[in-house]
Amino acid sequence: MQILSEHRCFGGAQRFYEHDSGQTGLRMRFSVFLPPQAAAGDVPALLYLSGLTCNEETFAIKAGAQRLAAELGLALIAPDTSPRAANVEGESASWDFGVGAGFYLDATQAPWARFWRMESYIVEELLALVGAQLPISLQRLGIFGHSMGGHGALTLALRHPGRFQSVSAFAPICAPTQCPWGRKAFAGYLGSDPAAWAQHDASLLMERQTAPPWPQGVLLDQGLDDKFLTEQLQPELFRAACAQVGQPLELRMHPGYDHGYFFIQSFIADHLMHHSRILARLPADEPGKPDKRSPPTI
Amino acid sequence: MQILSEHRCFGGAQRFYEHDSGQTGLRMRFSVFLPPQAAAGDVPALLYLSGLTCNEETFAIKAGAQRLAAELGLALIAPDTSPRAANVEGESASWDFGVGAGFYLDATQAPWARFWRMESYIVEELLALVGAQLPISLQRLGIFGHSMGGHGALTLALRHPGRFQSVSAFAPICAPTQCPWGRKAFAGYLGSDPAAWAQHDASLLMERQTAPPWPQGVLLDQGLDDKFLTEQLQPELFRAACAQVGQPLELRMHPGYDHGYFFIQSFIADHLMHHSRILARLPADEPGKPDKRSPPTI
Repeated sequence: MQILSEHRCFGGAQRFYEHDSGQTGLRMRFSVFLPPQAAAGDVPALLYLSGLTCNEETFAIKAGAQRLAAELGLALIAPDTSPRAANVEGESASWDFGVGAGFYLDATQAPWARFWRMESYIVEELLALVGAQLPISLQRLGIFGHSMGGHGALTLALRHPGRFQSVSAFAPICAPTQCPWGRKAFAGYLGSDPAAWAQHDASLLMERQTAPPWPQGVLLDQGLDDKFLTEQLQPELFRAACAQVGQPLELRMHPGYDHGYFFIQSFIADHLMHHSRILARLPADEPGKPDKRSPPTI
Repeated sequence: MQILSEHRCFGGAQRFYEHDSGQTGLRMRFSVFLPPQAAAGDVPALLYLSGLTCNEETFAIKAGAQRLAAELGLALIAPDTSPRAANVEGESASWDFGVGAGFYLDATQAPWARFWRMESYIVEELLALVGAQLPISLQRLGIFGHSMGGHGALTLALRHPGRFQSVSAFAPICAPTQCPWGRKAFAGYLGSDPAAWAQHDASLLMERQTAPPWPQGVLLDQGLDDKFLTEQLQPELFRAACAQVGQPLELRMHPGYDHGYFFIQSFIADHLMHHSRILARLPADEPGKPDKRSPPTI
């Protein structure tokens, strides 16, 4: 785990890292914001998943989350959106598939299956890595994301029960089996089996729950001037699935807002508060854990 | 004045514009954030000048200023840092001269003099344009900026007495006649006359004042881990000049902070508050002015 750069920010540290990933077999990058409270011990963390064409820098630069994260004592972890430089033929041929478009799943189809393992990379490898090497509490984890990353947040949370204690999303792809972006990605990464697709569709996963996974609620913000709303995002399908299983959902539709980071930054504070309210009630890690206080790197 | 895009943000509007400039003879771009209060009438505004290699998007994307500007009712205007596509030979040969490096002055030397007229472009043309076409009060204007743009903020404010009622800067180039960036730019744009150079050096301009131009103070933030601090920025020279004329200066030196936007966003709120405190005391524009309330563009 190699630190590429560190920038003091709101009394904490915005860092960019690179490391060799066993899951993807490639160098992978991610960013971490550590709040000032991390100097005194492990802090709760939010995993943020970005959308199509983004990378590990997008959230750190555009979302304006560090101010309140520093106040609330939340770490912010943002991985890249796909493997890069795998040199798979066609990996950069389109902006909504391949590079920058990992869809937070493990591909099963050649030639993608070897490298495109974003689900295992994030849930198994990356979280273990930051939990072991940084002052981050893996017992107090929230997950959120935007667009393709909103899909990632909802599906990873549903597919790994108990892993993430709080969930929210900005303009997520709510039903990828039923929209062009999702169908293209699932066909390429997962083949033609509908059962495999269903395992990565937040609305289908939610309606199969036997009890509400997050009794304290899921927060979802959506702009009404988002040009992808009707064809790609379909929040009404996720709302119906939540209603079916009694999952409390706060779905807020915002007139005039579009799909970009000017929308996200406008509501980022509400998301951090949502996660913090839930994570702050959880017990801190057990005493006797190894001390991972943020070492000075400069 | 053509709107390139508009994004709802914190209840206001982040806009990007392009227009034909009489001063530069080229298409020029700028960004404007209008707070929600602009729907009811003219609002005070801050002009933000960016640093080397930046453009009209940098501040809007990276500084995190819109949240508090929306609360305080401040418009934010951010021009580009130089003419572009003038096709002057060598205009893109270096990152600290030519394109992206206008230094907020009117060049007098060929071939730059024809297009590189950033001072007249901003102070004469751009402000008049936004004052006439947007709900912005030209009688309540603050100016601030970063690095080369901090130099721009200090020098334009000093060179145009009464134009800007409040002034602040992040890591400004305080004495361009005495640092490599400034010497290179001034030699190229202004030739070899020391008297011409002195007209664009904030420290020299300040020490020639006969009375403090801003009795309510100038705010200046500087990171102590800024790698340009000693050689290029030299805030101690500006501090000495302020002391000489009795200009109140709050110069804050921040351990651990570097030269980038993670530093700027950490202290942006203090700058908006500084300007707002001063501008809020000024009378609003006279009644009977033409109504320039923000028209709906979507």
